[in-house]
Amino acid sequence: MKVIFDAAQKRHYPGFFLTSGARAANPETPARADILLSAARDAGLTPEVPPDLGLAPAASIHTPEYLAFLEGIFARWQRIEGASDEVIPNIHPDRRGGAYPLSAVGQAGYHMTDTSCPIGAETFPAALRSAHAAAHAADLVRQGDDAAYALCRPPGHHAFKDLAGGFCYLNNAAIAAQALRCTVPRVAILDIDVHHGNGTQGVFYDRADVLTVSLHADPTRFYPFFWGHADERGEGAGLGYNFNLPLVRKTGDEGFLAALDRALARIAAFCPGALVIALGLDAYEGDPFAGLSVSTPGFRRIGGKIGELALPTVLVQEGGYVCEGLGCNLTAFLDGFRASHRVAEGALA
Amino acid sequence: MKVIFDAAQKRHYPGFFLTSGARAANPETPARADILLSAARDAGLTPEVPPDLGLAPAASIHTPEYLAFLEGIFARWQRIEGASDEVIPNIHPDRRGGAYPLSAVGQAGYHMTDTSCPIGAETFPAALRSAHAAAHAADLVRQGDDAAYALCRPPGHHAFKDLAGGFCYLNNAAIAAQALRCTVPRVAILDIDVHHGNGTQGVFYDRADVLTVSLHADPTRFYPFFWGHADERGEGAGLGYNFNLPLVRKTGDEGFLAALDRALARIAAFCPGALVIALGLDAYEGDPFAGLSVSTPGFRRIGGKIGELALPTVLVQEGGYVCEGLGCNLTAFLDGFRASHRVAEGALA
Repeated sequence: MKVIFDAAQKRHYPGFFLTSGARAANPETPARADILLSAARDAGLTPEVPPDLGLAPAASIHTPEYLAFLEGIFARWQRIEGASDEVIPNIHPDRRGGAYPLSAVGQAGYHMTDTSCPIGAETFPAALRSAHAAAHAADLVRQGDDAAYALCRPPGHHAFKDLAGGFCYLNNAAIAAQALRCTVPRVAILDIDVHHGNGTQGVFYDRADVLTVSLHADPTRFYPFFWGHADERGEGAGLGYNFNLPLVRKTGDEGFLAALDRALARIAAFCPGALVIALGLDAYEGDPFAGLSVSTPGFRRIGGKIGELALPTVLVQEGGYVCEGLGCNLTAFLDGFRASHRVAEGALA
Repeated sequence: MKVIFDAAQKRHYPGFFLTSGARAANPETPARADILLSAARDAGLTPEVPPDLGLAPAASIHTPEYLAFLEGIFARWQRIEGASDEVIPNIHPDRRGGAYPLSAVGQAGYHMTDTSCPIGAETFPAALRSAHAAAHAADLVRQGDDAAYALCRPPGHHAFKDLAGGFCYLNNAAIAAQALRCTVPRVAILDIDVHHGNGTQGVFYDRADVLTVSLHADPTRFYPFFWGHADERGEGAGLGYNFNLPLVRKTGDEGFLAALDRALARIAAFCPGALVIALGLDAYEGDPFAGLSVSTPGFRRIGGKIGELALPTVLVQEGGYVCEGLGCNLTAFLDGFRASHRVAEGALA
C-alpha cells in the first residue's frame, strides 16, 4: 500500500487565522505532514510522489470561477491598501442572488465561507498538489491496488464546489470519489473527521451516485455549526443519499464505534463499487479541537471495521492536529485497516 | 419640523472593525451624531427626545431570535477565551438549512453578515434608541406632522430581519415604514445612501405593500457586493416592488438627479400614502467612502425633488461619515426639502 505525497504541499503555510474576531496561530501547519508521513512509513506504506495532473482533478469538482479566484486572488489582495498579508474575507453573501462581484473583497466574501482559510502566495499550488495526491491514489485503486493513502494537506472536506472554508481549498475526497466514478457506478464517502464534512456533503447533495456519510461532533455547538444535522438527507435526486451521524461532545470509543456500525450498514446497503474515507484524526481524545474522545486503540478498531467492508478504498487525509498522539493514531488506523482489508480479485473490473 | 434624537444613541462606540482581513478604525462614530444634530438645528429643526418605546418597534421587523441574540451576545462573548473585545463573526452560513446553532460563535456567524458590525456592551441599547427615534418620527407624521427627521445612529439599512451588517443592527427605515403602514395601505422607501439598502430590500422583498427603491454606487465593485443589482426586482407577491438604480462610480449631481427622476416616477406610480427616505449623505464627493460625487448644492436639489412628491415623509438618517461637508450636506438637503414640501390637508386621514 502506498502513501501519496509531494513535499510541495508543505509550502502553504498560513501565518494565522481569525477566530472569534481575533488573530490566532493557524493549527493547519506543514509539520502535520511530516508527522503523518513518518507514521505512514511506520505502518509499512511506500511513499510515492503524485504526477503533475494539472487543473483537471480540481476542475472535476470545482467551478472555473472559483479556480480562477484561487489562482489570482493573492496577487490582487496585495494591491489593497491596509489589507492583511493573506486573504481573509470580511463580507459574506447570505441569501445572495446570481450576481458575481468583480472586486477582490467581494469575491473573497463570495468564495470563502469563514475566516479560517487564509490564502497566501503558495496556497493554490500546494492545494493543487494535495488534490493530485488524492487523484493519483484513486488512479492507483482504479488500476488494481486494493487501497491507497493520499496524504492530503491542506485538507479538503470543508471546501464546496465554489467555497473555501475551515483550512480547506480543494475537496480532495470529492476529487477522489469523482475519479473512482469513471470506473464504478456508485461510490461511497465516509467522513470520520471530528468536524462535519460540509463541503463534501454540499458537492454531492443532489446526486444519487455518491453516498456521503459523516460521523462528527454535534454541530449545534461545534464547527461548522450550520451543517451536519441528522435531518440533512440530500435533495432532489440526492434525497436519501446523505447520512449524518452527529455525536454528543466527548463521545469515546464505544459511542463512536456504535455510530460507525450504523454508517457501515448504510454504506453496505448502497452497494458501492469503491469507498473513499475522509480520514480525519481529530476525533482523538488529545486533539486540540477537543470535540470527541476516541483513543489510539479506538482508531485501530475503526480502521479494522472499515477494512471489513472489503471495498477498493482510497484513504484521504483530512484534519488531525499536532499533539502527542497524532502519528500513532494514523499508524493505528492503518494497522487496523490493513489487518482486516481483503478485496476480492477483480472487484473493480 | 422636528429632529428626533436621544444622546444615549451615542453610547455605541465600536473601537474597530475588520476590513480586508485587518483591523481598522470604525468610521461609524458618535461624533457623526453631534455634527448631524447641529446641522439639523442650523436648518431650523426642533430637537425632541423620543419616548421609550421598548422592544415593540424592533419586534415589528426583526425576529425574536435575532433580538435575543443582540441583547445577550456581548456578555456571552466575554466568556470565550482569546476572543476579540467586541463581537465579530468568523463563520458565515452560506446555503444554510433551517438549523440554528446554540454556541456564541455559531450565532454570531448566523446573525452577522460581515465583519463591520461589531457588538459591544452599549450596542443594543443604543440601537434600540435609534429605532425609537425612527418609530417616534413615524408616529409624529401619523399624527399630522408633514415630515419629521429621525437622527438614527447607529444606522439601519444594511440590517435584515435577522442579520446585522455594515454598521447596522436594527433597520430604522423599515421600522418607520412598518409604523406608517398602520395608517396607510402603501408606503414607499427611497434610499439615497451611497451603499445599496440591502437590508431594507431584504425585509420587504416578498411584499407588495412597501415599495423599496435604492440609488447607490454599482455593487459589482462596492459594498454590499451581493445585492443592489438592477435585476433584483422582488419575489413572490413582491415581484415588481423593488427597484434598484446602481450608478457608475463617481457619478455626480446630474447623473444622480437623472436617476432620482426615475426613482420618483416609480414611486408616484405606486401611489403611496407616505414616504420614508433612507437619508445617507455618503454619496457626497468628499465622503471617505468615495463611491459617488454628489456636491453640497446637489443635496439641496435632491431634497427639493423629494419634497415635490408632497407626501407625508419620515426622513431616517443612514450613512454619511465625518468629513468637511457632512453637516452642510444635511442642512442643504433639509433646506431643499422644506422649500418644496407641501402636503395636502388631511393627507393621511
